[in-house]
Amino acid sequence: MDLINVGCTLDYQINAPTNFLFQIAVAENEHQAIETESISTNPELTLETCQPSASGNRMYRLSVQPGFITVHYRATVKLNQMQRDTRQLNETRYENLPADILTFLYPSRYCESDKLARFAWDEFQHVEPGHTRVQSIVDWVNDYLSYEPGTTGPSTTACDVLITRTGVCRDYAHLCITLCRALGIPARYVAGYAKDLQPPDFHGFFEAYLGNAWFLFDATKLAPVSGLVRIGSGRDAADVSFATIVGAALSTQMNVWAFAAQTQQPPDDSDNNSQAISTAS
Amino acid sequence: MDLINVGCTLDYQINAPTNFLFQIAVAENEHQAIETESISTNPELTLETCQPSASGNRMYRLSVQPGFITVHYRATVKLNQMQRDTRQLNETRYENLPADILTFLYPSRYCESDKLARFAWDEFQHVEPGHTRVQSIVDWVNDYLSYEPGTTGPSTTACDVLITRTGVCRDYAHLCITLCRALGIPARYVAGYAKDLQPPDFHGFFEAYLGNAWFLFDATKLAPVSGLVRIGSGRDAADVSFATIVGAALSTQMNVWAFAAQTQQPPDDSDNNSQAISTAS
Amino acid sequence: MDLINVGCTLDYQINAPTNFLFQIAVAENEHQAIETESISTNPELTLETCQPSASGNRMYRLSVQPGFITVHYRATVKLNQMQRDTRQLNETRYENLPADILTFLYPSRYCESDKLARFAWDEFQHVEPGHTRVQSIVDWVNDYLSYEPGTTGPSTTACDVLITRTGVCRDYAHLCITLCRALGIPARYVAGYAKDLQPPDFHGFFEAYLGNAWFLFDATKLAPVSGLVRIGSGRDAADVSFATIVGAALSTQMNVWAFAAQTQQPPDDSDNNSQAISTAS
Amino acid sequence: MDLINVGCTLDYQINAPTNFLFQIAVAENEHQAIETESISTNPELTLETCQPSASGNRMYRLSVQPGFITVHYRATVKLNQMQRDTRQLNETRYENLPADILTFLYPSRYCESDKLARFAWDEFQHVEPGHTRVQSIVDWVNDYLSYEPGTTGPSTTACDVLITRTGVCRDYAHLCITLCRALGIPARYVAGYAKDLQPPDFHGFFEAYLGNAWFLFDATKLAPVSGLVRIGSGRDAADVSFATIVGAALSTQMNVWAFAAQTQQPPDDSDNNSQAISTAS
Repeated sequence: MDLINVGCTLDYQINAPTNFLFQIAVAENEHQAIETESISTNPELTLETCQPSASGNRMYRLSVQPGFITVHYRATVKLNQMQRDTRQLNETRYENLPADILTFLYPSRYCESDKLARFAWDEFQHVEPGHTRVQSIVDWVNDYLSYEPGTTGPSTTACDVLITRTGVCRDYAHLCITLCRALGIPARYVAGYAKDLQPPDFHGFFEAYLGNAWFLFDATKLAPVSGLVRIGSGRDAADVSFATIVGAALSTQMNVWAFAAQTQQPPDDSDNNSQAISTAS
Repeated sequence: MDLINVGCTLDYQINAPTNFLFQIAVAENEHQAIETESISTNPELTLETCQPSASGNRMYRLSVQPGFITVHYRATVKLNQMQRDTRQLNETRYENLPADILTFLYPSRYCESDKLARFAWDEFQHVEPGHTRVQSIVDWVNDYLSYEPGTTGPSTTACDVLITRTGVCRDYAHLCITLCRALGIPARYVAGYAKDLQPPDFHGFFEAYLGNAWFLFDATKLAPVSGLVRIGSGRDAADVSFATIVGAALSTQMNVWAFAAQTQQPPDDSDNNSQAISTAS
Repeated sequence: MDLINVGCTLDYQINAPTNFLFQIAVAENEHQAIETESISTNPELTLETCQPSASGNRMYRLSVQPGFITVHYRATVKLNQMQRDTRQLNETRYENLPADILTFLYPSRYCESDKLARFAWDEFQHVEPGHTRVQSIVDWVNDYLSYEPGTTGPSTTACDVLITRTGVCRDYAHLCITLCRALGIPARYVAGYAKDLQPPDFHGFFEAYLGNAWFLFDATKLAPVSGLVRIGSGRDAADVSFATIVGAALSTQMNVWAFAAQTQQPPDDSDNNSQAISTAS
Repeated sequence: MDLINVGCTLDYQINAPTNFLFQIAVAENEHQAIETESISTNPELTLETCQPSASGNRMYRLSVQPGFITVHYRATVKLNQMQRDTRQLNETRYENLPADILTFLYPSRYCESDKLARFAWDEFQHVEPGHTRVQSIVDWVNDYLSYEPGTTGPSTTACDVLITRTGVCRDYAHLCITLCRALGIPARYVAGYAKDLQPPDFHGFFEAYLGNAWFLFDATKLAPVSGLVRIGSGRDAADVSFATIVGAALSTQMNVWAFAAQTQQPPDDSDNNSQAISTAS
């Protein structure tokens, strides 16, 4: 039962009236409980909550006039990740997949699983189905790609990195998701915080649907899966951008952190405007 | 208030145990009421209903052993399309979009709106926002593309047809959706039947979100919008394939129809196994 | 010293005044001597020779009015392929490459070697340079791709088939060429006839520049390299299309053959209009 | 009759034995005479000339050990551009194109003219053939694209910028070349210096084959065509990179200039090692 402090401060220069949609607040579910949480802006503005029913992702909206704005978010999260014998985790037969899971078999913007059907089959047909096969995909992607920030961008897809063999966390996740879907295994993108990630940043990983549940994987192997804190999930990174900006704003600074509670202090960003929005005893 | 008969018969040769997911049954909502409906197979097999909560699309699942199978679907639908003064239909400001609508602003497999932001702005910035702008996109796409079956395929995207300038209904819809999203207008793909479409076939069109409601458009202009009967909607064609096949099956024949009730007779496919699954008085 | 009969008959329906450029006549060089050769059309028209100085490829031009035209080509070729100990065939150092060879290091339409630099290095860095490395590429491509006519088209590139893993002879050659160039080995596309190819057709293969000479390879392994008869070479298939058509013509039939002389009879196409254009005693 | 001073100094940090191929020396032909010219390195090394017979481009090779190297090039060029009544410049009929010109109709790495056949026809079929049509393409591309350094890269193609609508000089040239070829007009890429280009840099433009000669066009309209000084030409930018580097070298500084002789002084780069390699009285 791990207790993790996560958070971020995001500074923007606003050049025209701008609307933001933030996906920086952690999810609350059976595997992840929020002990304390606060979100605020400086200068103080109203953050409106926004939660699509399909994903349940917790978003915040903000309308800002020209000037400067800082967004503070911090939370202490208690992780209670599922422990199961992975050897027994098999793939769910297509005819037994719940209706809401089917969408995670379809190709999406950055995961062209329709194009990789043969590739996936040729590479992984001889691997035992289930958790073993997904882990094999993760290991293969980790070995195949080189982690090189700056080599890919916001339009880069799984097929692109299959050719260039470089990428960052989102590219690793996209390629794994694409190969899973191509093999009939539902897979989705997860955005979150990662304990002890170096350098600290938002992180992207993925989940595969095995044995009637979603299981976390991180093909970058840059941080332990046991320290991954979920913000939200979607078909791919298009669904869970940490900040969607409509208007004219420039990111001037960004700090992100995730570390074990009680072992380190968070950066002091003394935000007097902060208001607790959720406290679980 | 139009009454329309729609339906299809789908014949398959099954070479190995195969699972089907059909999206051929029409939607039921405030604009579209099902008067009578039946779905059946020959030989008679159990069709399991399947309805994802996010889309509400009505799907049917079927598990088939090797041999031959025919799927029959027919419905009589009463259309009650929304009539509004389109001159008053404006775009919804980003900060006012409902949470469940936001997803239809994101790029998807066949609609790379992230890549067409500048293109869309350069082409349509001088057009009045709202219904006029969407209609302008529809007219532009209709003029820009040539309708040529066989020139595109299941992997073809909006950017692909921007280059090749040919396509079929799904490509027309994808390009319109992509341009709408690139301009900040939520848009989604709709699969359906189209009254008097020649040659008869399943049809693909799209909806744009204007004035807090979804409005139908069909850039192919091959059939009147007033005769479009919805099966289901999604981000793009990846979400609403009329038949998803997992296994080994070969489509051997397909008939699709949609015509005004009482003016024509449906093809006689006298399926004694058919069971009424929905009847609205 | 093999003697091979090659040839083709090409039938076209001409719907408007049309110009053709044919690359069907075999090359003549130190490794390939033309014993007898004839080219003709029915009805009889003037075929104009056309030979770019850079490639030396032997082309024929033809202007045709609406109607029907058949082009006949046949040749008996004496092959005298270079025999060298391939173990001694090393790569030529960049600084020693002749000026006219450099162009075959550059990326071309179907061979995006600029994109595959890392891929090529990751896959083949541990293989001994020289003939061994090229043969390793050939074996890898042969194993990696599935030969499936109809899965690729005239716009398909090496990167495309790296993703889809299917293709035909030109795709096999393009992928090999691309990987060679990405590793600094000059490589070019060769169009030709292939003895005993089943089904008979024009064939595409490639050459790599090793030890100051060009060496033939065929990654499809569908026909012995010793029976490959060269028509011409270029950067990729864009340079050596067997028929370039400017106008409106429809190919109605095509026969291609290549077999050992004296062991089989050519198809009887009794072209009385044929004129011998080259005879080596 | 313009006299133009052009040149460049290129500084590199060499981290491992490296081979360079420079295309920085101007071409000499009937329209462009070299009055004086010098090329040298500091420290002094031997530059080997290298001239492919097909293009006639003047290249220099250089092998460098680890350390630092500066390459100096300067020339005074007398331009004598062809003056012809462009209204009489028609396209050459396909059947009359010289054999060596045909290659400039084929698609190349950055100019996928095979994909843009319909696009080009739809956009430019109503424009009078010949110089008028090429000028119409140039004007259209200039209007269509936005000149934005940093938005495209070394792998960007004509089809890419058709979608993104941004690019730099090479992208403008590639799109024009592609549209010309798609319409049956031979076109090739030209690298060179451009008088009064701001900021000073190497420049990329193109030539179209009209009335049996090559005519220069520059779709960027950033510098007068009358001040374009040719280095070399090729199918596209892949053929005329100003520096090809095989090894491990880092460009640390680059200065390029082109200005009317006698009106300005060149930057003082006092290269005592320079050796005159060409002097026309």
